[in-house]
Amino acid sequence: MFKVNPYFSQLQPSYLFAEIARRVRQYEATHPDGAEIISLGIGDVTLTLTPSVTGAMHQATDEMGCADSVRGYCPDGGYTFLTEAIAAHDYQSRNISIHADEVFVSDGAKSDLGNIGDLLSADNRVAVCDPVYPVYIDSNVMGGRAGRWDGTHYANLIYLPCTPENGFAPQLPTEHADIIYLCSPNNPTGTALTYSQLKQWVDYARSEESLIIFDSAYMAYIRQDDIPHSIYEIEGAREVAIEVRSFSKTAGFTGLRCGYTVVPRALTCRAEGGPVSLHSLWSRRQSTKFNGAGYIAQRAALATYTPQGIQETLDSIDYYMSNAAMMRRRLCEAGFTCYGGENAPYLWLRTPDGQSSWSCFDRLLNECRVVVTPGSGFGPNGEGFIRLTAFQKREKIQTAMERIRQLM
Amino acid sequence: MFKVNPYFSQLQPSYLFAEIARRVRQYEATHPDGAEIISLGIGDVTLTLTPSVTGAMHQATDEMGCADSVRGYCPDGGYTFLTEAIAAHDYQSRNISIHADEVFVSDGAKSDLGNIGDLLSADNRVAVCDPVYPVYIDSNVMGGRAGRWDGTHYANLIYLPCTPENGFAPQLPTEHADIIYLCSPNNPTGTALTYSQLKQWVDYARSEESLIIFDSAYMAYIRQDDIPHSIYEIEGAREVAIEVRSFSKTAGFTGLRCGYTVVPRALTCRAEGGPVSLHSLWSRRQSTKFNGAGYIAQRAALATYTPQGIQETLDSIDYYMSNAAMMRRRLCEAGFTCYGGENAPYLWLRTPDGQSSWSCFDRLLNECRVVVTPGSGFGPNGEGFIRLTAFQKREKIQTAMERIRQLM
Repeated sequence: MFKVNPYFSQLQPSYLFAEIARRVRQYEATHPDGAEIISLGIGDVTLTLTPSVTGAMHQATDEMGCADSVRGYCPDGGYTFLTEAIAAHDYQSRNISIHADEVFVSDGAKSDLGNIGDLLSADNRVAVCDPVYPVYIDSNVMGGRAGRWDGTHYANLIYLPCTPENGFAPQLPTEHADIIYLCSPNNPTGTALTYSQLKQWVDYARSEESLIIFDSAYMAYIRQDDIPHSIYEIEGAREVAIEVRSFSKTAGFTGLRCGYTVVPRALTCRAEGGPVSLHSLWSRRQSTKFNGAGYIAQRAALATYTPQGIQETLDSIDYYMSNAAMMRRRLCEAGFTCYGGENAPYLWLRTPDGQSSWSCFDRLLNECRVVVTPGSGFGPNGEGFIRLTAFQKREKIQTAMERIRQLM
Repeated sequence: MFKVNPYFSQLQPSYLFAEIARRVRQYEATHPDGAEIISLGIGDVTLTLTPSVTGAMHQATDEMGCADSVRGYCPDGGYTFLTEAIAAHDYQSRNISIHADEVFVSDGAKSDLGNIGDLLSADNRVAVCDPVYPVYIDSNVMGGRAGRWDGTHYANLIYLPCTPENGFAPQLPTEHADIIYLCSPNNPTGTALTYSQLKQWVDYARSEESLIIFDSAYMAYIRQDDIPHSIYEIEGAREVAIEVRSFSKTAGFTGLRCGYTVVPRALTCRAEGGPVSLHSLWSRRQSTKFNGAGYIAQRAALATYTPQGIQETLDSIDYYMSNAAMMRRRLCEAGFTCYGGENAPYLWLRTPDGQSSWSCFDRLLNECRVVVTPGSGFGPNGEGFIRLTAFQKREKIQTAMERIRQLM
């Protein structure tokens, strides 16, 4: 009899967005005639792909329909036109030494963040922030690195609380961590690690011989000077960190699918038979279990690095960040304690009067017809918070803020 | 110190296509003035995407550039417009009961064939054909199911020889297999399993409680009536088989990326706590580690099911299959013993005079300037064979056949 992966049975139901959808449907059914329900819940972009991107897609589509220019399988790791643009624009222009052949193009950050576990043995101790993007945890549960669920936590994970008290910057653990997931700017808290905060972690990883998996999908939203855009701005990070990025939140590619992961050649694991190159392992994993991002998506990604593409991307991000600034101002005026939203498209709000996350969710749905994400869905330390996204149309956000102001 | 997956060290170097490329480069460098080198090696399509497909891509691109129609993250498992078209056209039209919600759209068959291992525990006994598409083996090595490499085989795999003697139809193993990979029409042998041959395997899996992973990426090339297009044409297969398919070889999507995997709801694994649904596990795996195929690719895939799209696809496949028929005729005339090419775009040739696969490769490169794939790269039973692909322009194939005729 064949046997399934036993660790799946330890996964907790992934009910957060399903439960949100269920409560919204129920509310709609019982309140069919009210004003529009406005979602500030799911972190999905709402602006269109920009003209330079769609122009590149039309051109690439024409190429695929023409015998002289049709493209089949893409080279392992992505087309060099894209890996070289990424290395030049996202790294070398910031004096970070990352070579094009250390960049692996993929169909998105979520795939890479999930699949990277293929490279790691089951007996690593994994540290995650709390609250956290659930993919880090669930993919480690599947990989056998999380241990048993005790009702609130997985036994073998090290949880790093991120709270107002520590400015949402995780503190170094007292026990040894082999693998550390960091996300900055952060989903869900909307906060970002400063240079010195991130340096602590790189230094820790170097001394402990740990691996940092650094998720910088929201890098483009950074506004403050002291916040690194890449972990490789920290000296020595090339030897301890993998960086995962996406065009989804930078250029609105959530429906197009393109991201990339940097695995520096200097990153090795000390093993019995000698040092093992993570670059080689990831290269082999990807060439075995992946056939590359599509040509259209890669051409579209390249277009974001043209002068016009860069400007359009900046404009889109400015739009979302103006939303965030307006939301933060209005919500503070309304009496909320607000975090984030200054270097990220998310705001993290303490619920008023000690309400639970779900109570606050229900109140905002019932009384404001505004949908948010309960912070408790991101981990125990998310309880008592809600997450709001700035990925919405300006007018809708203005309406939502006005409704919330009247409530408070 | 963090630890890498120890099973990667058991992977054998994946040198087949790299070695082919190296020998071709070396030959070119020493013979700079000769006639064009013609590749019948890599199994990548050469015809363009068809007008109905590129038309859909242009339209979808315009939608993504328009505020009223832009799409973000796609629903888990794919857009229903596509899963319903797949269920209707590829299954229900053949009286196969597969529902749209049993279809999971992805970025391609290779990803699914690699990632499906996430669902399986490390102690399953895995059976693979020999010769075989290397992804089945390498992904199981990474997952710890293959055991140690003994120089020619992995200790824990069950190899199913596919030879001229058994008509390249693998025989049931004498020992119990938990997981069985089958590919029909087959890469690399170009042969296909008949209804009765496949039924043997479904019956075996039912009695042994095994799981069949059925790769039917080349389904569209079937010409004979007694060859099933889907494993679900066999009674009871819904309870024991996952089927993986791709638009790559059907509609030339190798550079676009779209495929799908069918996991029937009836497919369960008997486990301690009760039956476990593979559908649930795959759904959870995909929603955790994957964010869907791109909207453009899914619209493009849908276009292959329009009347015009269906006709264009048939025309492309006819073109390749006419190539295959011509190759088979010419190569037989030239004295080769040929297999396959009648229900698949690959021909499998016995090398003349007992030459090794690589000797024959070298001879065809040096004397005909034709590149093929040495059969030994697909497993021990591929030794003494070469694989030729029909995915090439007609004129080039004619030239290649003429050169080979003159050699023999």
